[in-house]
Amino acid sequence: MTVAAIIVAAGRGRRMGADRPKPFLPLGGRTVLARAVAAFASHPRIAAIVVPVADLDGARVALGDLAGRVRLVAGGAERQDSVRRGLEALGASDIILVHDAARPLVPAWLIDAVIDAAAAHGAAVPGLAISDTVKRVAPDGAITGTVPRDDLRLAQTPQGFRAGILRAAYDAAALSAARGTDDAGLVEACGGAVRLIPGSSRNIKITLPEDLALAEALLALPPKEGGRG
Amino acid sequence: MTVAAIIVAAGRGRRMGADRPKPFLPLGGRTVLARAVAAFASHPRIAAIVVPVADLDGARVALGDLAGRVRLVAGGAERQDSVRRGLEALGASDIILVHDAARPLVPAWLIDAVIDAAAAHGAAVPGLAISDTVKRVAPDGAITGTVPRDDLRLAQTPQGFRAGILRAAYDAAALSAARGTDDAGLVEACGGAVRLIPGSSRNIKITLPEDLALAEALLALPPKEGGRG
Repeated sequence: MTVAAIIVAAGRGRRMGADRPKPFLPLGGRTVLARAVAAFASHPRIAAIVVPVADLDGARVALGDLAGRVRLVAGGAERQDSVRRGLEALGASDIILVHDAARPLVPAWLIDAVIDAAAAHGAAVPGLAISDTVKRVAPDGAITGTVPRDDLRLAQTPQGFRAGILRAAYDAAALSAARGTDDAGLVEACGGAVRLIPGSSRNIKITLPEDLALAEALLALPPKEGGRG
Repeated sequence: MTVAAIIVAAGRGRRMGADRPKPFLPLGGRTVLARAVAAFASHPRIAAIVVPVADLDGARVALGDLAGRVRLVAGGAERQDSVRRGLEALGASDIILVHDAARPLVPAWLIDAVIDAAAAHGAAVPGLAISDTVKRVAPDGAITGTVPRDDLRLAQTPQGFRAGILRAAYDAAALSAARGTDDAGLVEACGGAVRLIPGSSRNIKITLPEDLALAEALLALPPKEGGRG
């Protein structure tokens, strides 16, 4: 079973308010992008890595020694376009993982779990339960209700797919002009089954400046006993 | 305008898997409870603090010097019962804040913002937008859909209320045996208007062991410029 990964790094990350794209920001002595790529490049089950980026030269610098381990491709206007270009650049593989470079702390055990669940179920997404009360708000800030959250999960990446399922979902999305916030959403949109598996609390998404500080802090924490942190 | 705070510390925090109740766990050289209480005790607009706890003696030890700043009362079987006992112990005040001791890092600016919004609107809840895709799952882990999240917020505490509104909501809940996951939910249940205001990303809820490590890491971070972290 061959496994390939697409690590999407084409986003600008405007909410960071930084002077350069989010994947190029420093995190613990490397860049965010290099940390995300290293998680897959060092994983024994990953045979190929494609990285859609907005700035090819910038990505080479950000990757440093790791640049030789990945295939860089030009990303598209939106995330979905970037994944599509990654799919076009990938050779044959049994399982495809799609990961956001904005999650640079993904643990190796989670990559394994997503591969196994994708192989078993066709499509798999890691996710976390919600520990906070969820409110629905009107545009003016008035709360219109409390949303039951027992059956809700916050989705993470990598999301994993049997290659044919992901490619078919992207082909269908191209025909229907469907837009999704994540890859599993496109599989769901054409009726495909997707399995949710437990995610990792370390696997945060860097969206706001304080998330980067948080990631620095998490890097300083030891991995949990048993590895399921 | 007098403002009082109820800081609920009666929960056991079983998901922590620790040898003592969550409020009594150490965090940056103090206890979780002492940090939560200190945020209110050091705030110039807070006139009175009531703390419902399961273990009065343990709480005195956990609070140390701060024990003299609060009124400790015995909590109830569930969070809602504990808040009710806090309300019974509180004297007259214009605004009542209800806070979970499990959020020990609440910033002073957020306490101010909740007081002001409660005074203006009657009831106010701080909350954060959701940056992750939200999935709905069946009991077997199959994803049944992607949930639009633009109008969803993750609610935090302190939640703030004009005193009459909160007391009326608790009276109504006692008659109807209504249970809510938060205090604003009881106000919503009797048709009261609640306003959502921006929360703080530092104001995490300590639920799992890794949250405590994260709180330690956040303590080491400097407050953001402008104070809105």
